[in-house]
Amino acid sequence: MYINEHFLALPESYLFSEIARKVAAFEAENPQSAIIRLGIGDVTRPIVPTVIKALHAAVDEMAQASTFRGYGPEQGYLFLRQTIVEHDFLSRNITLEPDEIFISDGAKSDTGNIGDLLDSQCVVAVTDPVYPVYIDSNVMAGRAGELHNGKWSRIQYLPCNEANQFIPSLPKSRPDVIYLCYPNNPTGTTLTRTQLKKWVDYARENDVLILFDAAYEAFVHDEEVPHSIYEIEGAKEVAIEFRSFSKTAGFTGLRCGYTIIPKAVKGKTHDGKRVALNPLWNRRQCTKFNGTAYIIQRAAEAVYTPQGQTEIQANIAYYLNNAHTIKHGLETAGYKVFGGENAPYVWMKTPDGMSSWDFFHHLLHTCQVVGTPGVGFGPCGEGYFRLTGFGDAQKTKEAIERIQTLKPSI
Amino acid sequence: MYINEHFLALPESYLFSEIARKVAAFEAENPQSAIIRLGIGDVTRPIVPTVIKALHAAVDEMAQASTFRGYGPEQGYLFLRQTIVEHDFLSRNITLEPDEIFISDGAKSDTGNIGDLLDSQCVVAVTDPVYPVYIDSNVMAGRAGELHNGKWSRIQYLPCNEANQFIPSLPKSRPDVIYLCYPNNPTGTTLTRTQLKKWVDYARENDVLILFDAAYEAFVHDEEVPHSIYEIEGAKEVAIEFRSFSKTAGFTGLRCGYTIIPKAVKGKTHDGKRVALNPLWNRRQCTKFNGTAYIIQRAAEAVYTPQGQTEIQANIAYYLNNAHTIKHGLETAGYKVFGGENAPYVWMKTPDGMSSWDFFHHLLHTCQVVGTPGVGFGPCGEGYFRLTGFGDAQKTKEAIERIQTLKPSI
Repeated sequence: MYINEHFLALPESYLFSEIARKVAAFEAENPQSAIIRLGIGDVTRPIVPTVIKALHAAVDEMAQASTFRGYGPEQGYLFLRQTIVEHDFLSRNITLEPDEIFISDGAKSDTGNIGDLLDSQCVVAVTDPVYPVYIDSNVMAGRAGELHNGKWSRIQYLPCNEANQFIPSLPKSRPDVIYLCYPNNPTGTTLTRTQLKKWVDYARENDVLILFDAAYEAFVHDEEVPHSIYEIEGAKEVAIEFRSFSKTAGFTGLRCGYTIIPKAVKGKTHDGKRVALNPLWNRRQCTKFNGTAYIIQRAAEAVYTPQGQTEIQANIAYYLNNAHTIKHGLETAGYKVFGGENAPYVWMKTPDGMSSWDFFHHLLHTCQVVGTPGVGFGPCGEGYFRLTGFGDAQKTKEAIERIQTLKPSI
Repeated sequence: MYINEHFLALPESYLFSEIARKVAAFEAENPQSAIIRLGIGDVTRPIVPTVIKALHAAVDEMAQASTFRGYGPEQGYLFLRQTIVEHDFLSRNITLEPDEIFISDGAKSDTGNIGDLLDSQCVVAVTDPVYPVYIDSNVMAGRAGELHNGKWSRIQYLPCNEANQFIPSLPKSRPDVIYLCYPNNPTGTTLTRTQLKKWVDYARENDVLILFDAAYEAFVHDEEVPHSIYEIEGAKEVAIEFRSFSKTAGFTGLRCGYTIIPKAVKGKTHDGKRVALNPLWNRRQCTKFNGTAYIIQRAAEAVYTPQGQTEIQANIAYYLNNAHTIKHGLETAGYKVFGGENAPYVWMKTPDGMSSWDFFHHLLHTCQVVGTPGVGFGPCGEGYFRLTGFGDAQKTKEAIERIQTLKPSI
């Protein structure tokens, strides 16, 4: 029985398990240390009361035969799809139909599984640094080629660094698919409407599919930064957008996201036929997915109530304030820092030309602060370091104070 | 942008949407009709009190920062994996490690996604009739070839019919992968330990991977029928098993299942290296899945408490009693009926040589009873019809009485 050998091309260790291993080793040697974790992008604020109330109510529905819900629609319940259409899009003058929305158990599943719709030979472009799922899922599907010096031979890397102020340039040669994530993970930087329009125009002119990950859109408050790629004219013909309740409403442990595939988005066959992607994804989900839990969809619906919105906005403000604490605190100490304004992530340049991993060790050993080495997100992440605003406010403040104390000694 | 053209090979309509369409059309023409649905295999009994209680408690944990859970392990929480190992396996003298268990959002996802691990050229064998996901997910991956007269050219069909008493024969030529589902969907038939051992032995002798779907194991009460393929010696080296809480505990709307990949199960590379599948699936899940909701995993854990077991067994008995009502009632009326003893499904032969769809229409129009045409599950399903024990007991009884009244007129 032959296996899919593309799996064997993947490096053995994951970034975050490598970090966890190193931190555990440090703790074992230094049991008295008070480590502060600003590494993994997981939320820490509990689920807001309005959502909790909706969950309890939905659980009670499951307890009675008259209100029990079994299999739901693979695409998600209409009550949630309709709410999303109205709240997240119509309010921004974007018209979508409920059957252009697919509810899922999270954006990671969808960004990973979307490759099912693509030809095995599609050339994929990613910004660099990048969320590893975009790369790894394509490695598994055989689209990545071979790994040399941290780069896959068939993947196009679009560098994002201090030199271009983290605004990627258009690809030099045409890819088939471009992954864009804005607000960006890991850099916390954004594209303005004008900047994003260049990509939509490029995709339209070159028959390219944009996979737009908007998992962090709730953190946008700058008027010039779009929440959705569909704010850009013409995007509905070239872009799929991924959304998540994980960071918006703290659903990392509840699992709910959604994907928008407008009916106008098309790919082609080798004999030149144009094929809409929406029915293909519908078929994929109907075959390999059985819908998101009813009670979770009711929880997601509650996020959109006026009270739910007030409550989640308070949490988003809390995390943004942490990001501000990190950004401002590091800038004051003389570090170069990016992102963190319309995103929960702060991307700092490592001091004195230290490598990402050297700085990781340095910070762990001298300050007992854990962050994420930028190189873990791609070759252009080397020399950078990610800190997240998802922690406790007091601990975040303390972590930054420790780093500030450290600075003069570097 | 080229699409995965294998999707285009799939027939446009699904079995169950076709049924829904026909039933809706009938209802529109006959608004007074009292239709009884014994078609789709969805449960109808509510979630049992012990599980409801666990859900409420877990929801309350999510409401406090001190007990809130964000991202969980992609493989599932240890509390659930450990409970499964002890309750479902150790109790049957099967030794598994928790890291051989992967919790998911359901067996449909896992049976659909498992193909990620297989070479694109693997030859797949299925029993016929069969759960459509096994076929369709392989069509999407390009392993099925072309469709001619209801059969895919590269899929091996293992006929199950009255002639062989629904006990499939071993394949005539070696496939790479065999899907087995016992207790069977759609026929409701089972394999004894002795019968299943033939398949395990065949797989061991021929380097074949068995994908064993045990979603209906909770309905087994016959001592000779195994609950798990791992009751068969040597199966841990050749079989992956899929389990589900959907039918066991009514989780069709809560979404939880699990997959067992023993570390001894291996495939090979084209240069002859043996590769364990467990770490490949671990990598697949870590990349393209973000774990099952914490509250759902706590609900699944509650299924295993003594009180939870008592409660779910009552529901299983209720459904099995329905299956008995159907089976006994149809036999009394002179129909040939199979399954329905260790499974919630009853598989009946259509009378007078009627086709599956002709009988579907006949039953709908004369009795207002909805079932599933056997041919929808594969070519060997032609001339058969599936009824399920998942309905309301009173309505099930009434449906069978209607069919009994009908019989003399056929």
